[in-house]
Amino acid sequence: MDLKEESLNLHKKNHGKLEIKSKVRIANQKDLSLAYTPGVAFACKEIEKDPELAYEYTSKANMVAVISDGSAVLGLGNIGPYGAIPVMEGKSILMKELAGVDSIPLCLATQDVEEIIKTCKYLEPTLGAINLEDISAPRCITIERRLMEEMNIPVFHDDQHGTSIIVAAVFKNVERFTKKSLKDMTLIMSGTGAAGSQIAVMLKKIGVGKIYAYDITGVIDKKKYDSYNFLIKELLDQGIYDTPENHDGTLASIMKGANAFVGVSAPNLVTKEMVQSMAKDPIVFAMANPTPEISYDDAVSAGAYIAGSGRSDYPNQINNVLAFPGLFKGALEVRASKINYEMQIAAADAIASIIPDNELRRDYIVPGAFDPRVVPAVAKAVAEAAIKTGVSKLYKK
Amino acid sequence: MDLKEESLNLHKKNHGKLEIKSKVRIANQKDLSLAYTPGVAFACKEIEKDPELAYEYTSKANMVAVISDGSAVLGLGNIGPYGAIPVMEGKSILMKELAGVDSIPLCLATQDVEEIIKTCKYLEPTLGAINLEDISAPRCITIERRLMEEMNIPVFHDDQHGTSIIVAAVFKNVERFTKKSLKDMTLIMSGTGAAGSQIAVMLKKIGVGKIYAYDITGVIDKKKYDSYNFLIKELLDQGIYDTPENHDGTLASIMKGANAFVGVSAPNLVTKEMVQSMAKDPIVFAMANPTPEISYDDAVSAGAYIAGSGRSDYPNQINNVLAFPGLFKGALEVRASKINYEMQIAAADAIASIIPDNELRRDYIVPGAFDPRVVPAVAKAVAEAAIKTGVSKLYKK
Repeated sequence: MDLKEESLNLHKKNHGKLEIKSKVRIANQKDLSLAYTPGVAFACKEIEKDPELAYEYTSKANMVAVISDGSAVLGLGNIGPYGAIPVMEGKSILMKELAGVDSIPLCLATQDVEEIIKTCKYLEPTLGAINLEDISAPRCITIERRLMEEMNIPVFHDDQHGTSIIVAAVFKNVERFTKKSLKDMTLIMSGTGAAGSQIAVMLKKIGVGKIYAYDITGVIDKKKYDSYNFLIKELLDQGIYDTPENHDGTLASIMKGANAFVGVSAPNLVTKEMVQSMAKDPIVFAMANPTPEISYDDAVSAGAYIAGSGRSDYPNQINNVLAFPGLFKGALEVRASKINYEMQIAAADAIASIIPDNELRRDYIVPGAFDPRVVPAVAKAVAEAAIKTGVSKLYKK
Repeated sequence: MDLKEESLNLHKKNHGKLEIKSKVRIANQKDLSLAYTPGVAFACKEIEKDPELAYEYTSKANMVAVISDGSAVLGLGNIGPYGAIPVMEGKSILMKELAGVDSIPLCLATQDVEEIIKTCKYLEPTLGAINLEDISAPRCITIERRLMEEMNIPVFHDDQHGTSIIVAAVFKNVERFTKKSLKDMTLIMSGTGAAGSQIAVMLKKIGVGKIYAYDITGVIDKKKYDSYNFLIKELLDQGIYDTPENHDGTLASIMKGANAFVGVSAPNLVTKEMVQSMAKDPIVFAMANPTPEISYDDAVSAGAYIAGSGRSDYPNQINNVLAFPGLFKGALEVRASKINYEMQIAAADAIASIIPDNELRRDYIVPGAFDPRVVPAVAKAVAEAAIKTGVSKLYKK
């Protein structure tokens, strides 16, 4: 049986991937009077007096909605909210299976930014957090920013921050393993959308020296400032993207002499010759899905010192499941009102630190997706960072 | 331990009443590749081609959202969406525990009719049905009607139809037990809101002769037509409410000589004298919550032949759990696009028929809330009625 048949069977046989269970028994009138009417009225009245008590008396404290409009699903593009459901259900069950977090997929039949924002806000009472997913850029940036400002629960767009946390963990380990400072690194970032922009932000936050960005419009150059969308302009303004002194607009021209390449862009953009033109012992993480910018094997044979991809069948897989389950678990545990950069960097640190110095290898620079140490470590680090930065509603620093 | 303490403990100890579980195992890379990326893309692509396949490959087919704005909760009034959560969670777990239906509570932070309508419509992709709950009248009528017209999944406001289905079952059994035709019955309906109006509609549909309605404005009289809201006007237009010939506006004046009283109104409205003034062997169902219009004991001692209430500690309890779990189960099983009156009457018939002729008694006119025969019988009857009336998307009549 091939993957297609086996996966369709799994989905069909189970009628989807998740179900909702009662945590209390309802077998007789007594059970009913406690969990439903008339006893339930006491919990209602307590919460009416103090809405924060919804965290105590309801499932809110551990409930994450995975919300998508299906506008940018995986490598599938704008397949709409129906087609997106299996991915969101997958996300939801990963939260439960890996981190014990309850999660419900909600795919919205609108792709209007303001309507998505309003809908999310209306859903706040029952939710402990929102995982935005597979919403196209730059709409996703607007939606996430507005919701982070206007809601009192964490809102986290995994496509932006999930990958960037793990890439940050990778480069922390690259620094530890190679003993070369990230400050001296010139890194090529291919892709300036949701994921690419946040990877650049996180890499600058952890100390990478220079980042030259490239996308479908060519090399990002401050001379072309007026032609860019708000997101690229912002990252140029903030000095996240640097402008290379010499380039002819091609990726090849900026790869020459660079120390690292990170791609979340398009298949087969990078040739072996381009890797060979990089500085000594280059780092190549090509994560375009499902076909990377350059295959792991080609990158290594062209001289990449450390390489990685999004694929599980090669070493150094960048897999979002390393971050989001523990991240939400930690944020919910301390009732964080948001997930800020400090919490994301704490997550990156925690993921990186799973591998002790003496176990780090070229082909073991990031822990495996199912390493059981990851989720508890990430959750603990994120919870501590939330308290430290004053966003925990439960514990004060 | 009293009810308050015991119920609050139950809610707090469990952190709410429901959790979300995975139906598939995620323990290794293989599991991940089938339930999530890359295998999940095959299900996404199938659904993109035909959105109806969401019923096959996702949890949609068995998923009911319990949606409320908290504007009219139980006997608690407009306590808002946070206070309402424990009730909606209770509703959700009853669906699962009694009928195996997955259900998620969603309490909305808006009480604007148009915004509630839009939000429900946006949520359609992931849902198999919507249970509207505890939304104040007559807003709930507008919301339900619009959604039934504009959505392609069943939308059912339990406060309107839940009680009315069970009251219809009761009066079917009253007719069977007393062998007196409902056609000859004059019935007093106290309450003209969400529940009262639908009880009147259902009772007329099953053959009750005359219904005189009463509410906080006094006796409903076509002479005062212009002063009424659209709902009362409509029921007067349709001949659901009849206008009594002689009355002085008081409840007492229309109770005289009536055969039955049904109340979903206010505590202690009905005196023993009023029951004594009714025709011989009167039927009295006083269901105001938590204090009825007249207590079961007072109704019986004043001469009620058959009496009932919403309370579980007296005979003939009118409990919504008799209807909604089986109703949703049946509607979902045949993928109904709506829940129409034929399905509701089929549910009432099924509930009534649980008690065979030779077991019907004055104090056993309606089955108990936990009678295990109820849910399967209701589900089967509702599914058949859906097919017969052409609203099943799976089976043609």
